[in-house]
Amino acid sequence: MPSSSLLSSPPKPVIILDHPQMGENIGAAARAMLNFGLEELRLVAPRDGWPSKAAEDMAVGALDKMPPVKIFNTLAEALGDLHRVLATTARPRDMLKEVFTPQTAALNLNEAAATGQRTGFIFGGERAGLSNDDIALCSGIITIPTNPDFSSINLGQAVLLVASAWFGTQKQAQDAPPRHIPQGDSFPVTQDKLEEFLTRLEGELEQGGFFRSEGLKPTMIRNIKNIFTRPSLTDQEVRTLHGIVSALKRADIADPL
Amino acid sequence: MPSSSLLSSPPKPVIILDHPQMGENIGAAARAMLNFGLEELRLVAPRDGWPSKAAEDMAVGALDKMPPVKIFNTLAEALGDLHRVLATTARPRDMLKEVFTPQTAALNLNEAAATGQRTGFIFGGERAGLSNDDIALCSGIITIPTNPDFSSINLGQAVLLVASAWFGTQKQAQDAPPRHIPQGDSFPVTQDKLEEFLTRLEGELEQGGFFRSEGLKPTMIRNIKNIFTRPSLTDQEVRTLHGIVSALKRADIADPL
Repeated sequence: MPSSSLLSSPPKPVIILDHPQMGENIGAAARAMLNFGLEELRLVAPRDGWPSKAAEDMAVGALDKMPPVKIFNTLAEALGDLHRVLATTARPRDMLKEVFTPQTAALNLNEAAATGQRTGFIFGGERAGLSNDDIALCSGIITIPTNPDFSSINLGQAVLLVASAWFGTQKQAQDAPPRHIPQGDSFPVTQDKLEEFLTRLEGELEQGGFFRSEGLKPTMIRNIKNIFTRPSLTDQEVRTLHGIVSALKRADIADPL
Repeated sequence: MPSSSLLSSPPKPVIILDHPQMGENIGAAARAMLNFGLEELRLVAPRDGWPSKAAEDMAVGALDKMPPVKIFNTLAEALGDLHRVLATTARPRDMLKEVFTPQTAALNLNEAAATGQRTGFIFGGERAGLSNDDIALCSGIITIPTNPDFSSINLGQAVLLVASAWFGTQKQAQDAPPRHIPQGDSFPVTQDKLEEFLTRLEGELEQGGFFRSEGLKPTMIRNIKNIFTRPSLTDQEVRTLHGIVSALKRADIADPL
């Protein structure tokens, strides 16, 4: 990332479908994306594989006009190069995450994109949606406001509403004056560097006997992830956290319990 | 209509599908309606008849929770008791009609509903969309902003986007102070009374030799309809127009060419 430069065209959000099941829904999502100017689609472990005839039929040509769909094994890998991602989920979770509507989510990602950050919208699979562990990887959640007595919407419809809301904010985003990209060190960290830190932290904590109960360990790890995904950490801050972990380890060696 | 009273709950927009073809799309429209709190669905001459197994499957229970769908032979009949209707169409027409986005359309209908007017959103069939004659019956048109290079959205998606935009404006509409319903005479005319006047006018003009060319007649009638659908006429104004026509006829008898 250059230390400071003017951004000509902000990067558009990526759409990530986590464990999608039916090709039809992937195709409907692709069609909806292109209807509203979004072109980069990533799939995490699609149940019926890829490419998909059902998806191509439903996309009515959209997939041919977009860059090739990228396939990943895990959600964390699919988010690796992104700086800010929001997860679409109907269910309120017992987690402290900022909650957006499709429109406020679009404005939030526009802000990040205006400074050169790569952003994304995540959607869960048809059956299971997103797990709490998936959501722990995200900066915030999007809840589509619906009739509480009949709230179920399908994957393609969710992508349509989020993509349409994003498109609706683009005129405004384009009219905004160009922004200076912040210097490298104060640039937000990518998901993969954050994940690297969290994995290291987890290992060190394991070694230090932090997880006293195996049963509670997944919840504790998720809570820790939520602490570090919430504040939009910079590259420099994550390096500082690494330094803190190293220092604490040295302290432990120098002054064992 | 009472001469003046406080309106407790504004009537919600009706959804009218004109010549829908596939039951699947009717079902998807019904599901999308109920997702966003709309419950009254009218169909004009559905190609495959009604009820429809395909529609019920796609509606995932929505049709059972809504009042029975009403079927009409013509669009004009389906609009009869409504005061303000907007037509969703992607194609800009060579007509002077106010153009709305889904959101500004919702705000426009909320304004009318707040004074007790019955409103509706019209959607054309999958193949032919709405004809110019259909659009001539409406107060304005709704164009959904899309990527100009890939703009085709299907019927169910169009209903979803319009219904969702309407739902998004309801909090605001509910927070507005209750409005006084205007007196009977100044209340907007219903579509059927307007249609009655237009039909009479057409007959009188026919008799008076107004339509010199049979070929141009449909266009001339449409242009006349557009003159009278544009200004949101009141009951009293339409009675005045009837009076004008009668007076002109008497003038013609008294002073023949």
